[in-house]
Formats: sequence, structure tokens, C-alpha cells
Amino acid sequence: MAKSIADQVAVVGMGCTQFGEKWDKGPEDMILDASVEAFADAGIESDDLDAIWYGTLLTSGSGLMVSKTLKTGFIPVTRVENKCASGSEAFRNACYAVASGAYDVVLAVGVEKLKDSGFSGLPNTDPDPDGTRPNISAPASFSFLAPAYFEKYGLTREQGKEVMSRIAWKNHKNGSLNPKAQYQKEVLMDKIMNAPMVADPLGVFDCSGVSDGAAAAVIVRTEDAHKYRRNPMYVKALTIAAGTGFGAIHQDFDFTSIKENNAAATTAYKQAGIKNPQKEISMAEVHDCFTPTELVIYEDLGFSERGEGWKDTLNGKFDLDGELPVNPDGGLKSFGHPIGASGLRMLYEMYKQFQGKAEKRQIEDPKFGLTHNLGGRPWECVSFLSIVGKELG
Amino acid sequence: MAKSIADQVAVVGMGCTQFGEKWDKGPEDMILDASVEAFADAGIESDDLDAIWYGTLLTSGSGLMVSKTLKTGFIPVTRVENKCASGSEAFRNACYAVASGAYDVVLAVGVEKLKDSGFSGLPNTDPDPDGTRPNISAPASFSFLAPAYFEKYGLTREQGKEVMSRIAWKNHKNGSLNPKAQYQKEVLMDKIMNAPMVADPLGVFDCSGVSDGAAAAVIVRTEDAHKYRRNPMYVKALTIAAGTGFGAIHQDFDFTSIKENNAAATTAYKQAGIKNPQKEISMAEVHDCFTPTELVIYEDLGFSERGEGWKDTLNGKFDLDGELPVNPDGGLKSFGHPIGASGLRMLYEMYKQFQGKAEKRQIEDPKFGLTHNLGGRPWECVSFLSIVGKELG
Repeated sequence: MAKSIADQVAVVGMGCTQFGEKWDKGPEDMILDASVEAFADAGIESDDLDAIWYGTLLTSGSGLMVSKTLKTGFIPVTRVENKCASGSEAFRNACYAVASGAYDVVLAVGVEKLKDSGFSGLPNTDPDPDGTRPNISAPASFSFLAPAYFEKYGLTREQGKEVMSRIAWKNHKNGSLNPKAQYQKEVLMDKIMNAPMVADPLGVFDCSGVSDGAAAAVIVRTEDAHKYRRNPMYVKALTIAAGTGFGAIHQDFDFTSIKENNAAATTAYKQAGIKNPQKEISMAEVHDCFTPTELVIYEDLGFSERGEGWKDTLNGKFDLDGELPVNPDGGLKSFGHPIGASGLRMLYEMYKQFQGKAEKRQIEDPKFGLTHNLGGRPWECVSFLSIVGKELG
Repeated sequence: MAKSIADQVAVVGMGCTQFGEKWDKGPEDMILDASVEAFADAGIESDDLDAIWYGTLLTSGSGLMVSKTLKTGFIPVTRVENKCASGSEAFRNACYAVASGAYDVVLAVGVEKLKDSGFSGLPNTDPDPDGTRPNISAPASFSFLAPAYFEKYGLTREQGKEVMSRIAWKNHKNGSLNPKAQYQKEVLMDKIMNAPMVADPLGVFDCSGVSDGAAAAVIVRTEDAHKYRRNPMYVKALTIAAGTGFGAIHQDFDFTSIKENNAAATTAYKQAGIKNPQKEISMAEVHDCFTPTELVIYEDLGFSERGEGWKDTLNGKFDLDGELPVNPDGGLKSFGHPIGASGLRMLYEMYKQFQGKAEKRQIEDPKFGLTHNLGGRPWECVSFLSIVGKELG
């Protein structure tokens, strides 16, 4: 009989670079920066590691690049890839390996160097044997969520723009409190609402930036965690839903929900024993690649009832001082999305919050945190969910 | 305290396509063929799977391509990559996830479509920031092993050519008995020894071919294995060594050994409780990308004493009816090396041998099998090792 991953493994050290346009840093430099912070935090040296999992989508260089950078000798480095959830996959696979007992001390590290890669979020180059997938940019793909939501729940375009802008405003405000963010400035609602269009109705502030960064976590089994620190972060749930039944856009495709999010949430809440996410989840980092994505995520993950996410947004439910803070670190909005790093960057915020080290962003006594990392397009994607906690049991 | 992976998980179904130039098949077709064989063999449907690990190096298409092909709905598909050991990594990661208890029934599948990819084993395109790596082809990289070995152990060029040819001859002979191989013909020693040069002293028969293929395994925990079949294959050891300390070729680099192989073997034998591999390992599939690679592997893995591999080769120790049959299925020599598939193809042969289903290649009552899958170049590579067994304990 399967046992759950819940409480089998713990995070005892984390690191995260400052995200941004790092023209003077290569992926090796950023891997080193994030890992060294994680090692120091866990009180270990690279020699103490038994294995490494490495997440990246586009950065050239295999696992051996990581070995060479961290001088880890013969220990295994496994590269994992799952679209924009590649960093979360490094964490997930590392947790399984530790839980299996194959290794005692493992590093999960993710990096992406987008500024040098020519990446622009432009057309999807995956094969499309059926010829049924629209070959459009990421902003265009996610822009469909907005008018679908507005229409279904009776919002005017102006109201809808206000809701999206309120999400961007919140995340930029949170990011302004975070020295690791790419953008550390508040942006006025008026400026967001009247910004130049990227993919109507998405203005430039409805889109996350293009940046470079890395993040890392040191993972051990729960029974060993207190050898490293008094306040580890425990893993309660890990899952990833992969959806393809909706590979082509059908005329009746419902853009007000991403079904993979529901599937992942159902599984993750069950693993963690969460019955009422609105009450039990203290804080969440979600994949706000574009503002309407965050809006839809609120409802998909059960943070809002269906059709209520926009009201909860305007009422400040997801603000830093709200009932359920979402993206307290500033999200993809403030950090950009260096792909392999993002999932681990989200976990970094949960980890610091649990330890009371989130400074001006500190949430009062959080118990459970959730990270949500999406890869792909609304009609064909992977949705990763982790639930992490401050205490055992 | 870490428990070993030994006897935690078992393989209850496997599939493998016929390898070759499959101009009429896409990666999806080959994934389907290998998986359907594995499902039928395990007595399951794709609906019974809880998760999938997918190994590929070059084939475009993410994990979602696998979901779509196998119609596995929302279940997770994680892509792993570790150079030429990517298929073995799919197996390794799937085993850890099952052992952790996160999933009960998992598929590991690997594929590569080399004939359409433009792949020719030509120059390495990994970044080389130090500018110290020779940018030469795979045959040239491995050709260095041959003269180094000949010189160290006092073989004339003619004697050395005979040893290499004897390895090619053996593997082609084994392949001639295998309906799944790319090349199913015996080749005469004389023809091998006098074949056109690829990278001196490697003739064309010293090199493995370029082919397409896929292979798959269904993995469950040992306690569940007998629900699926009476004769599962048990995993005794899994490891991968990543070497980078030798990243540049130094003048004193010793090409008669690949240190990553030693490191992996030491770990794997310890995990499986193997004290004398020459006596205890019944059969092995090793990474014979080029004939001198297999020669060096014999010694690196302890199948021969140092400097004795060439004599053991000529004495038939590694022949199908020898003391320790190596590459009973015909090896990369007869199968080519569709990268993501090779590691699982090796396990497929072990699995069939344990069940007495290897037909004309059947080895008498094998107890332990070893698979060895190399990625990279002699001076910078990853070396995967698995040990599998017929019985528990």
C-alpha cells in the first residue's frame, strides 16, 4: 500500500539569487550563488551531498555543468524538465529519492538564463502532429482567459481590467518589499490600467518579465532534519497533473478554468489532509505568468468560490495583510520567470516565511504554504502543486 | 539512516521495439509500441498507471507528448535527461518514486528518433567556457582508448585490432540471434579487421550504428510484485557517477580506464552486496558504443583484472557461452544507440533472460544481471549502473 509523501522529507537549507537581467552572470555563477547560500543555511559543505537534481528548460549545459560548478566529484546529477515547472520537478524528484532512502542529503537546484537565450515567450516550437494547436505567443495564449472570465461572470471590460490590474498592483507592492525581486517598485493602478497592450486585454503590467535567476534547496529525511536546524520546512504534498485531453482548442473549451490545476489541487489536498483550503492554507505562491492566470488559479485551487475570485481580489483577500496572502514575495510579476528557478523560488519564500525571516513581507504565524507552478498553455499544460508546513503531523 | 534501494522495487512488465531505421515511425509510435508491450506483459492498462518517467536526449516533445500518446489523462510525466544515460535515468527516478511510496504503479519509458534528427555523433556542442575540451566527434573521442590500452599492456597494433574485432564479432553474433536488433547478421573477423577506418584505429565495425527505438518498464514495490506476475525482476542496485574533475584532457590523462565506471561499480556492488563481480554477476549489458569502450569497461567493472581484459576477450570469457556473457542481446553494436531507449533496452534483455525467454540467447539460470550505460566522453562522463536479480534477498 502506498504511503503518502507527507512528512517523510524536510527542507533544511535554501538559497535564491537576486533575479533580474544578469548580463554579467552565467548559469554556473547563479547555480553557485544559490547553492552556496543553501549550503551555508543548512550548515553543510558540497561534500556532504549524496546527489543532486537539476531543473532547467532552456539553459544549455547538462548535469555535468552542475557537478563541475559545485565540485561535487562523482555524485549523481540528474536533469529534469517539465516545461515551466522544471524547477518544481527538481524538488519533487529529489524528495522522492530522499524518501526512498537511496540518499540522505540531496540538493535540488534550478536555473535559467533567459536574457541570453533569445527567449521571448514567443511561438511554441513543440511538435504539433495534428496541426490543431494555435502557434501563438504565451501572452496571447493566456490572454484568452480574461474575456472568457469577464463574460461568464458579467464583468465589463473596464471592471475586468481593474481586477487584473489589482492583481498586478498587489504583486508589485509585495515585490517592492523584496530585495531579491527583479522589480522592486510599487506601480500605481492607473499606470497599470493604461499601460501599452501586449495581447489585448493584457497590458504590459499584466505580464511577467524576462529575467535570470537560480534557487536551491537542501532536502533530508524528516528523522534527520533536526541534525541540521531547529526549524525545518516539512513537505506535506507533491503532485503534478499533466493535461492533454484538451490539446486542441475546441469551440466549447472553457477558458475560465485550467483543469490541470483542479486535478493537482484535489490530489495535493488529499495528500496533506487539507479539507478547506481557504481556511487551512496560510499563504501561497502561484504561477502568475499573466494576471488572469492568477485570477483563474484562485478559483481552480479553491481559494475562491467559482465566479468570486474577482470580488475577493478587489476586497484584498489575497493581499499581504489579507485572509490568504498570494504571492507574498511578489510572484512572477516581480521576479520574472527564469524557468528552472521559479518553482524553487516559490518554495524559498515559504521557507523564509515559516522561519519568520520574511522581513517586511512577514505573514503572522503561517502553518501551511502552497506553491503552484504551471507549464504550457491553458489548453495543454502541467500543473505542479506542493504543500509545505511548519510543523509535523 | 539510509536504507538501500535493494529489493524495494520490482519490474513486472517490459516492452521494447525492434530497433533500426524507422523512417515510417515517429517517437509517439515507438513509445506506444514499447509501452503497449509492457502493459500487456504486466497485465495492466494505461489507466492503472500512477505516474510516468520519460527519458530522451534529443527527441523533441515534452512529457505531454507521452501523456497524449498513452492517453494517461492527468497523471504526471516527468522528463529526465542525463546524456546517453537518459533511458537509465527514467528507470532510476521511477524506482525512487515507487520506493518512496508516492506511487504504486509507474512506467519508465525511453525513446530516441536519431535517423530524423540529423544526429551523427559529430562534434559536442556543450558549452566549453574554459576552452580546454577538444571539439571532436564521438568516434574520435573514444578512439583514444585503443592505442593507450595497446601501449600500456604491450599489444601490437595488429593484436589490438584483433581484440577490438573479437568484441565486435561477439556482439554481432549475439545480435544475429535477436529479432529486435538493428543488425541481425554475423560478421566475419576478417571483414571487421579490414573495414574502412572511421577514427583510427576504429573501423566501421568498431562503432555502433545510428538507429531509432523505444523501450519501457512497469515498476511496482516488491510487496506488490506477485499481484502482477510470478517472476518479477528485482532491483538490487542503482547508481550513476558523474565525473568532471578530468574535464580537460591533460597530458597524463590515463585513457585505459574511465574513472566514472569504477566509482559507479564500487557503489553498486556495495548496494547489492556483491563481493566478487566476476563470480557473482551472471550476465551484463554494457555500453559498447565503440569496441575499446567495452574492453575498458571489463576492467573498470572488475569483470577482468587490469591488463587482462584483452586476454579474457580472446579466450571467449564474455561470449554467450562464456563465464560472464556480456551484451547477450547484441549490445549497442547490434542495436545502435537511440539514446533514451538504450538503458531500458539493456534492462529488457536482463528481464527476458531471468524469465528464460531469451530464446537462442538464453543463459543458463542467471542470478544477477548488470546494466551499464555511459554518457559523455571518456574524460567527462556519467556512468550509470544497475544490478537486477531473479530472486529476493
